[in-house]
Amino acid sequence: MEGYLRSVRGEFEEKLAALVEIPSVSADPNHAEDIKRCAKTAALWLKAIGADSQVIQTAGHPVVIGRLQSHPSNPTVLIYNHLDVQPADASEWQHPPFSFSKVGDRYGGRGTTDDKGPALTALFAARFAKERKFPLNIQWIWELEEEIGSPNFEQFMRSHPHLTADSVVVSDTIWIARRHPTVPYGLRGLQTLVLTLQTHEKDVHSGLTGGVARNPIGELCELVSACYDAQTGHVKIPGFYDEVSPLTREEIEQFLRSGFQTSRYKKAHGLTKIRPHLTTEADVLSAIMAAPTFEVHGFVGGYSGPGIKTIVPHHAEVKISMRLVPNQKPNRIVKQVKAYLKRLNPDVRVEATQTLQPFLGPRRGFYADAARVAMKAGFGKDPVFVREGGSIGAVVTLQKQLRVPIIFLGLSLPEHGYHAKNENFDWGQAAGGMKMFVRYFEVLAKQGKR
Amino acid sequence: MEGYLRSVRGEFEEKLAALVEIPSVSADPNHAEDIKRCAKTAALWLKAIGADSQVIQTAGHPVVIGRLQSHPSNPTVLIYNHLDVQPADASEWQHPPFSFSKVGDRYGGRGTTDDKGPALTALFAARFAKERKFPLNIQWIWELEEEIGSPNFEQFMRSHPHLTADSVVVSDTIWIARRHPTVPYGLRGLQTLVLTLQTHEKDVHSGLTGGVARNPIGELCELVSACYDAQTGHVKIPGFYDEVSPLTREEIEQFLRSGFQTSRYKKAHGLTKIRPHLTTEADVLSAIMAAPTFEVHGFVGGYSGPGIKTIVPHHAEVKISMRLVPNQKPNRIVKQVKAYLKRLNPDVRVEATQTLQPFLGPRRGFYADAARVAMKAGFGKDPVFVREGGSIGAVVTLQKQLRVPIIFLGLSLPEHGYHAKNENFDWGQAAGGMKMFVRYFEVLAKQGKR
Repeated sequence: MEGYLRSVRGEFEEKLAALVEIPSVSADPNHAEDIKRCAKTAALWLKAIGADSQVIQTAGHPVVIGRLQSHPSNPTVLIYNHLDVQPADASEWQHPPFSFSKVGDRYGGRGTTDDKGPALTALFAARFAKERKFPLNIQWIWELEEEIGSPNFEQFMRSHPHLTADSVVVSDTIWIARRHPTVPYGLRGLQTLVLTLQTHEKDVHSGLTGGVARNPIGELCELVSACYDAQTGHVKIPGFYDEVSPLTREEIEQFLRSGFQTSRYKKAHGLTKIRPHLTTEADVLSAIMAAPTFEVHGFVGGYSGPGIKTIVPHHAEVKISMRLVPNQKPNRIVKQVKAYLKRLNPDVRVEATQTLQPFLGPRRGFYADAARVAMKAGFGKDPVFVREGGSIGAVVTLQKQLRVPIIFLGLSLPEHGYHAKNENFDWGQAAGGMKMFVRYFEVLAKQGKR
Repeated sequence: MEGYLRSVRGEFEEKLAALVEIPSVSADPNHAEDIKRCAKTAALWLKAIGADSQVIQTAGHPVVIGRLQSHPSNPTVLIYNHLDVQPADASEWQHPPFSFSKVGDRYGGRGTTDDKGPALTALFAARFAKERKFPLNIQWIWELEEEIGSPNFEQFMRSHPHLTADSVVVSDTIWIARRHPTVPYGLRGLQTLVLTLQTHEKDVHSGLTGGVARNPIGELCELVSACYDAQTGHVKIPGFYDEVSPLTREEIEQFLRSGFQTSRYKKAHGLTKIRPHLTTEADVLSAIMAAPTFEVHGFVGGYSGPGIKTIVPHHAEVKISMRLVPNQKPNRIVKQVKAYLKRLNPDVRVEATQTLQPFLGPRRGFYADAARVAMKAGFGKDPVFVREGGSIGAVVTLQKQLRVPIIFLGLSLPEHGYHAKNENFDWGQAAGGMKMFVRYFEVLAKQGKR
């Protein structure tokens, strides 16, 4: 394996450079052609290692699929990565974001860690598996709309029912600390809400109408405060916590072995003060990983320019989302919120705009054990099983469509600048990642069709 | 007097046309030269009737002053009007806003009713008083920054201590209904507040930090809700109502004779629903004219574009103002708010940005009686004494500097489109206004120096 790593390093770097230099920014319509070019390039590379590959159009950006078939009787693993990237403001970067840089073992450029580097790592591991004739079929899905919330992914999966597998491996997550391999087994879900209230026809003058005219911003503030305690984050919507399954002591103990440090976490996110009731690391980790939230993202309406305009606004909108945890049902929560808000203020329109189910994968059993063995092979250390506070829409779709175990074998580190300026990846994580994937494929292959 | 009215009508219309066609929009720096031209024109017209006049520069737009001196032993009345106007969006107007139109008795154009028409009405009455040799001195102050909150007026008054008078008459208010002459004797004050809260360095991702990171918009919503009940408008700041002197039954009865109709008021302001606890006209009138308020004007911070961005904002600002009523002391209120908010959330910065004292003028005694007699002479009917819900900074300054009675003899009607599109004035109000002013001057002159 070490010989293979040495032999492919140059090619890995060339390919990573080539991908970085295609600015596949899914959020920017001006990059639609780059996205197409990125998809074509990736599909050719799949072909080059002997896989069938295709670029599939969707209503938005395409999806690249590929399949390395050994024998129908062998198990199939589906590898999910995405090749689109976050936007990048070049003025904030030390090196231009869409120009590959290499300093020692470190590779710089937008997409290096999220998620082009991990995608290539898995590709090179798959090539090794193929060369060594592992009795395993490998199916790829490389999405190009992940960074914009996978708007067409569910439709894509529904219209490609032949894309089946015995398990899925996703490589798009971040360890909590270097040298602490981490395997997430849970994701929070998301339910967004837009509350709008129009109380009159146009903004009016607070001298002429103040006291008589209703104030939609004030009324929405009242609803926000009725929904949650902003100091502690405790949600006050009746029934909200009913279906939350509490963490076990053992889960929390795992979380605490992840290398997490509150001080480092605060520094990484620029949080000077966190909610004061979160006094221990267990409190903080449980809050991020396994507690639901209520969050206000912004207000629309009224006057928000410099100074003050003494108007009574006629219309206001507040943008809200709730992170939901495993066992909470988004549509049940939406019903609870709507009933509660209707009782408090029947004039407010409540619109549930986006739903992502929470996700809970295996943390015991064959696939979890395979992940444990693979991470140890790649990084010399047993991984800890944690949950992630975010939501990955594509994962929820994969679970819903395929109904097979999904394992996260992520390679990104906090210092890689995931979604941030000066994004980077490193050969240490790539090389360890190749060993990890190879070992994972090996375990899956050895076990055979289950 | 009727002969005088007939003889000056043509000149009145010419002068009003000339003023309307100078777009003296104080809010727009591009109109600074128009403002100057307007001031010069007005000063010349004062000279033309025999007054001393001057255009006085301030740090902003100029002020026009003038004085018709009969004899030092005669009483002096100071007439306050303003000659700057609100901006106008021509696309919303039936006729171009800065081109004078005349249809029958109705004069159209920006500034016709606010406040160029009333200013000219008083000027023509003063000319009559001069021609008839009323033993009265008349002092003018024509401001050109009223529509932007009179930012330099206090400084102007302080640096011109010779501008004294025995009383002030202000003509810049609106009747509640045509054929219901109205004399306001009270104004609400204003205290603006900007609450800002920064909880961390930059917006963070609610998946990675939600539950742990504080949310400044949520915390400010909580404070807004702690400050007032948005449903009723009741202010919850401890001590807020302590100094409010309640209305007398008699005051409310006057208000009810003003021609006010809740249905017409709602229609005029486009208010479909008003606060539901205001069930009678007395409730509504008391709420506008003599109750303090707490109002939220807008939020800054977070995400307010289309859709939702699942960020936890790092900073938020909420723009607030309170209308205050006679006997409430703005600086005492500010202290109460600051103490209350500090207790609730010590991290929030509370900035008191603008203060206007509430105003209470005479509604009994010599000047109130003179106003009553004058209104009856002009419009054939006893006026009712009401209060206004708005604040006029210049009036508060005049009271503070001159310490003499201030009487409001306004001429605008609700249908004149004050601060609105298709602003207009009419000869009925101008002619009645001239009679009113002449009679008012006559009463003041007859009484002599008090």
